Order: sequence, then C-alpha cells, then structure tokens
Amino acid sequence: MARTLAGLPTRGNLGVMHITILGGGGFLGRKLAQRLAAGALPGCTGLTLFDLHEPAPLDAPFPVRRLAGDVADPAQLRAAIPPGTGLVVHLAAVVSAAAEADFDLGLRVNLHGTLAVIEACRALPSPPRVIFTSSVASFGGGQSAHLPDDSRQLPANSYGAQKAAAELLLQDATRKGFMDAVSIRLPTVIVRPGRPNKAASSFVSSILREPLLGLETPLPVGEDFAVWVCSPRRAVEWFLHAATMDTTPLGLDRGVNPPGLSVTVGEMLAALTPTERALVKPEPDAHVAAIVAGWPASFTADRARALGFTPQEGVADILAAFREDDLGATLAERGMAATRTERGL
Amino acid sequence: MARTLAGLPTRGNLGVMHITILGGGGFLGRKLAQRLAAGALPGCTGLTLFDLHEPAPLDAPFPVRRLAGDVADPAQLRAAIPPGTGLVVHLAAVVSAAAEADFDLGLRVNLHGTLAVIEACRALPSPPRVIFTSSVASFGGGQSAHLPDDSRQLPANSYGAQKAAAELLLQDATRKGFMDAVSIRLPTVIVRPGRPNKAASSFVSSILREPLLGLETPLPVGEDFAVWVCSPRRAVEWFLHAATMDTTPLGLDRGVNPPGLSVTVGEMLAALTPTERALVKPEPDAHVAAIVAGWPASFTADRARALGFTPQEGVADILAAFREDDLGATLAERGMAATRTERGL
Ligand SMILES: NC(=O)c1ccc[n+]([C@@H]2O[C@H](COP(=O)([O-])OP(=O)(O)OC[C@H]3O[C@@H](n4cnc5c(N)ncnc54)[C@H](O)[C@@H]3O)[C@@H](O)[C@H]2O)c1
Ligand SMILES: NC(=O)c1ccc[n+]([C@@H]2O[C@H](COP(=O)([O-])OP(=O)(O)OC[C@H]3O[C@@H](n4cnc5c(N)ncnc54)[C@H](O)[C@@H]3O)[C@@H](O)[C@H]2O)c1
Repeated sequence: MARTLAGLPTRGNLGVMHITILGGGGFLGRKLAQRLAAGALPGCTGLTLFDLHEPAPLDAPFPVRRLAGDVADPAQLRAAIPPGTGLVVHLAAVVSAAAEADFDLGLRVNLHGTLAVIEACRALPSPPRVIFTSSVASFGGGQSAHLPDDSRQLPANSYGAQKAAAELLLQDATRKGFMDAVSIRLPTVIVRPGRPNKAASSFVSSILREPLLGLETPLPVGEDFAVWVCSPRRAVEWFLHAATMDTTPLGLDRGVNPPGLSVTVGEMLAALTPTERALVKPEPDAHVAAIVAGWPASFTADRARALGFTPQEGVADILAAFREDDLGATLAERGMAATRTERGL
Repeated sequence: MARTLAGLPTRGNLGVMHITILGGGGFLGRKLAQRLAAGALPGCTGLTLFDLHEPAPLDAPFPVRRLAGDVADPAQLRAAIPPGTGLVVHLAAVVSAAAEADFDLGLRVNLHGTLAVIEACRALPSPPRVIFTSSVASFGGGQSAHLPDDSRQLPANSYGAQKAAAELLLQDATRKGFMDAVSIRLPTVIVRPGRPNKAASSFVSSILREPLLGLETPLPVGEDFAVWVCSPRRAVEWFLHAATMDTTPLGLDRGVNPPGLSVTVGEMLAALTPTERALVKPEPDAHVAAIVAGWPASFTADRARALGFTPQEGVADILAAFREDDLGATLAERGMAATRTERGL
C-alpha cells in the first residue's frame, strides 16, 4: 500500500484517496466533513457522506456524494465504500439511551453495522484505514476510577457492550489484513449543539449550552460529579490524527483511550457568568445519576499521548469553541433570533 | 423464577427442568451428557443434545432428544431450546485453527451462533441459566504472564476475538434479563482422546496420549514451555458448578477464569514412564511455537476459587483420568486392539 506525503493510505500507485464517512450527517460526522472540505487531509480526492437520511450539501474542492442508507445493509454499504476508498470513518451508531430502549436496534446498527463495514472493507482491492468511535461508556469504574490504558471493558449498558464487541471484531479484521483500524474511545463530547436529548449524558452539554442561550436547565447530579469530556473540535482533531498516523506502534491493540479532560460539574459551571450559572437549577435525578455514576471519570491516556493524540484543552476553550462554531446554528435551529448577549440578557 | 433444592433454575412452579447442550456431540458435550445421564443434576427431567450431526444415543433416566442442526440458524435453535429449558450449555464452536483458516465460518458459528442463542433464550417464558465456554485463547500475555482476574482480553486469533465478543453480548443479555449467563474461559483441555488434530494446541494432548498408545509423537516446543490446562473431568465439574451456583456474586461480570493448572511440558513428560517418554521426539516447529507463545501460561483465578470452582488436580491425576475414561475408546477408534501394556510394549 503506497502512502502519500501526508502518510495517508492510498490505493495502489494511483496516489488518490476516497474518504467515506458513515454517519456523515451526524454531529461529529458533519464537523469532520467540514474540516475535510477545508483541506484538512490534502490526499482527499472525493468524499462520500452516508447516513440514514441524505446528509446536507457540502461545498468542497472535491466531489461529494451524499447517500441515504442503512449501515447494517451490506449492499448499501458496499456502494458507500467504493474501490479507491483509503479511509472509512465509521461514526454511524445508535447511541446509549436509544440502544438501551431498543436492544434489537442497537445490536443491528452497532454490531451488525460494524460487521457490514468489515465486509465492505474486505471487498476493497486494498485495505483502508478505518476510524471507529467507541466510547467511555464501554468501561465501568465510576467516579473514583482513573483508568490505566490496559483497563478491561466491562460495560453496564448495551451500547457499551456493542461498541466493545465491535472493537474486538475490528481489531481481528485488522490482524487479518482486511483493514487498518483505529478505535477511539471518545469521552462525552461537549458542548453538543441543538436541544437537550434523552441521553443520560445530555445534561453535561445542557448545563453549558442552555445558560448560554439564556435558558434554565436542570442539574441531575451534584457539583462534585466528575466527567471525562472532550470538545467536538478535539474529537475531530483526533480523527484527523488517526487518519494519518503511523499505526505500526499500535500492534494488535487497535483501541485508544484519547487524552480527554476530567472535569467536575462545579468546574464547568465556574466557566459561566454568574447570571448564566443561576440558570442551572439543582434537580437531583436518581435515574440519571445511577447510569452516569458507573462511567469512569478519568483515564491516564498515556498510550494515546505517546501516539501523538493531543490532550483536550480546558473548559474555557471548550466554551469558546462552542460560541464560535455552534452557538449561531443552535439559536437558528431553536428559532431564537440572536445570542443572549445581543438580546441583552 | 422458582429454584429447586439443588439451586437450579426451574420453569415457574412446575419444578421440572429441561437441559439443552449445544455442541452436545462434541468432546466435552458428550462427557457432560454422560454425567447428566448418571444423575449429576437431579433437577434434570429431559435433555436435548444438539450438534451439526445427530449426536449418538445416550441411556438416561429421562427423555433425550438428539437433534442435528446449525447453531447459527435461529429457527433450528428455537426448536433445540424449548419452553421449560432451565439450562443451556453452549459449547458449539468452530475451534481455533478452523476459525483462523475460515474467517466467515468462525464468525458465523462463534459470533452469530451466540446471537442466536441469545434470541432463543429471550423467547423463553423465563430466563434460563446459560453456560458458555470461552477460552484462554481470548487472552494474550504469553509465557511470562500470570494473569489477574481483571485482565483485558486482547486476542491474537479470530477464535479468541469471537469468543471475547460473544462474552460481552452474553453479559449484556444477562444484564437485560434475557438469561443468566456464566462464561467459563477454559484452559487447554487435556488429554483429548482420539487423534492428533490441526489445533495449534494439539501437541499438549498428543505428548501424553500418543505415548500411552505406544506411538511416537513430535514435540514442537521446548520442555520449559508452560501451558494452562485442565482435564475434561474438571471442565465438566466446572460446568456442573456453574449450572447450580448462586450467580448473584457475579454481578455484571459474567466471565470466570477457572482455576486450571499451569504446567510445563517437562512436568507433563515426567508423568510418563521412561519408555513412554522416549516416544516424544523434539521437533521444533516455529509456526506452532509462534501461536502458542502468545497464550498466557497462568492465571491467578482467585475470583473463581472464591465462587466455588474447584482447582485442577495434578498431571498424574489427569493422566489417570484419561486411562480410566478415554484410553479404551481411543484405542477402539484408532483400530488398535488393546492398550500398549496389554500389547506388551
Ligand atoms: N457525541 C458523544 O458524546 C460521543 C461519545 C462517545 C462516542 N460517540 C460516538 O461517536 C460517533 C458519532 O457521534 P455523534 O455524536 O456524531 O452521534 P450522532 O448521533 O450525531 O451521529 C450518528 C449518526 O449515525 C447515523 N445513523 C444511525 N443509525 C444509522 C444507520 N442504521 N445507518 C446509517 N447511519 C445511521 C445517525 O443518523 C447519525 O447521523 C458515534 O459512533 C457515537 O457512538 C459519541
Ligand atoms: N477442548 C479445549 O481444549 C477447549 C479449550 C477452550 C475452550 N473450549 C471450548 O469448549 C467448547 C467445547 O469444546 P470441545 O473440545 O468439546 O470441542 P468440540 O469441537 O469437540 O465440540 C464442539 C462441537 O460443536 C459442534 N459444532 C460446530 N459447529 C456447529 C454448528 N454450526 N452448529 C452446531 N454445532 C456445531 C461440533 O460439531 C462439535 O461437536 C467449545 O466451545 C470450545 O471452543 C475448548
């Protein structure tokens, strides 16, 4: 497999590379696509965005295909990953609360979907780099944990179990030479734009986003509750690094715990103005607390650092990035005319 | 779910229990079936033996169904696991060398087969106890390893990856209340009767079995090579314990590293007579050595001990058990008239 200057896998000696993002219409998929359109990976000569619904148009200096389909459908997936694909970013997933509510759906998308990705990659003339997003939810440990890199995944939810099983299969597919996989076990990504959702982790974004919109929001846990987080910007940087890094040092072990940030709710709230902070209303929720209490609050992430994954910056930067990247769109989506500052709040 | 005196899960208040062994025609399946026929689990009121080929008849004090079918076929599996099933012993597998040679077959039987087991159990009116056999091959670590109970599974073969992924899914199915699973990560089971096979671990049995038959056998590794082993008798005892134990202390973590025996090739050979031992011929095999070198040679197995799994006795007992239980059948199968002692060797 020839490599371009950027270290990207390319197809034979053609020197060109097609990139496919599965789940390309989602939160992180869209952000990655925008970075690619801005030239983040110079080797990229074409992009396929694949999602349940046809992803929105994207201005890019290379052709962009936008496909609607189901990642668990092998035929649709083969079409989404054409010969010449050098990189597949597999983000398509049924997330935690949804996978818990609908076991069959989670299994189909998170497990069978990944099996279909393996099949499609195996059918390519040369094995592509594959970036998979696993999750902090595949671990247990809880608040007191500071997990070393060789920690066992003992998930307490179907989503985490399916992600961990998918990691094992991708690792084996890599060993077999069907692909060159890097599984990034993402922290909770904040600040998620849009609206609060049913994910147990939704509050971690809400307690920052809603006050910035001038809206009240409930806080289901105590202020000393710690979370392992990263920003969407940092997550996308990790994807770009995983796309171009030398994977030889990974050996058999294709899972990476990236250097996120362990932060308490109190530390997050301290980044808000007093007016904003007053909008966060303590409302203890035993159900949410029970779920999130199992997630590890911190990782050593030594291996990822040594592999060149850049650590997450502090809460102030995360907040600044949200204001720059997503506040406007969130206001528009929610039918709010201007930022709260502009509205004089 | 009512429980009989023996602590067995029973169906409602009927107080009866059907048992199904998937892979019931195989090495360990057959031995377990014989123990059940001899009354090892008094709650057993009926037995289904399911395997690719119809298992051999079995004399038992309860009805025995013998079914031919594919564990990865959901309809056949539902027929094999009828309402009233209180215990499913899932031994059906494509073993290491075969899963490595045929990736699709391994995935179909070891992964999709386990998914079909989950589906069939979930369809039952009450969740059965499920015993799954995972493997030492799902770990790495190598000769120097003495693996603690919270060791991560980082398999270096497709069989191990499929077993580890299956464990995650069974654990989640247990958490969801579809079953009550115990996954026993079996050591290499010796002495396997019959003929040498293509498994990389085949030599571990051959160096004991073949000399007892008066036959020469190659030794592909050095005498200081250590292996984690158990006898088929001990494996079946572990199954019986897993069938009746209180699973509450397992919590979320349904995988058990049972207390096998860490033994060197030299220690195994020392259990033979000098004449028998002379039949073992050093024949270094780099291919076999490379595979088996990755397997851990030892586990602490503290958790299993605390859970009541009895430790493996020594090599002499393993050899004595083989003579008592399997030597005659092995001689017959291989067309050899009598034991080597009787033949005056
Ligand atoms: N955002 C986080 O906090 C976080 C944390 C850990 C891991 N992750 C993982 O990162 C990835 C991306 O996360 P995100 O926040 O962008 O999620 P998202 O839900 O915004 O995006 C996932 C996309 O997958 C698509 N999808 C779902 N089922 C599909 C199917 N059957 N076929 C095709 N597409 C399908 C969805 O439509 C959605 O657009 C996911 O795999 C997620 O599990 C995210
Ligand atoms: N024997 C060992 O050293 C050892 C070590 C670790 C784990 N294990 C595990 O223990 C279990 C039993 O081992 P064994 O030594 O008895 O193996 P075995 O090969 O003798 O028995 C397995 C049985 O499964 C059956 N089978 C295979 N594919 C099937 C399918 N598609 N549908 C239905 N049946 C199918 C086979 O016909 C065979 O009879 C297996 O799961 C194995 O992976 C064994």
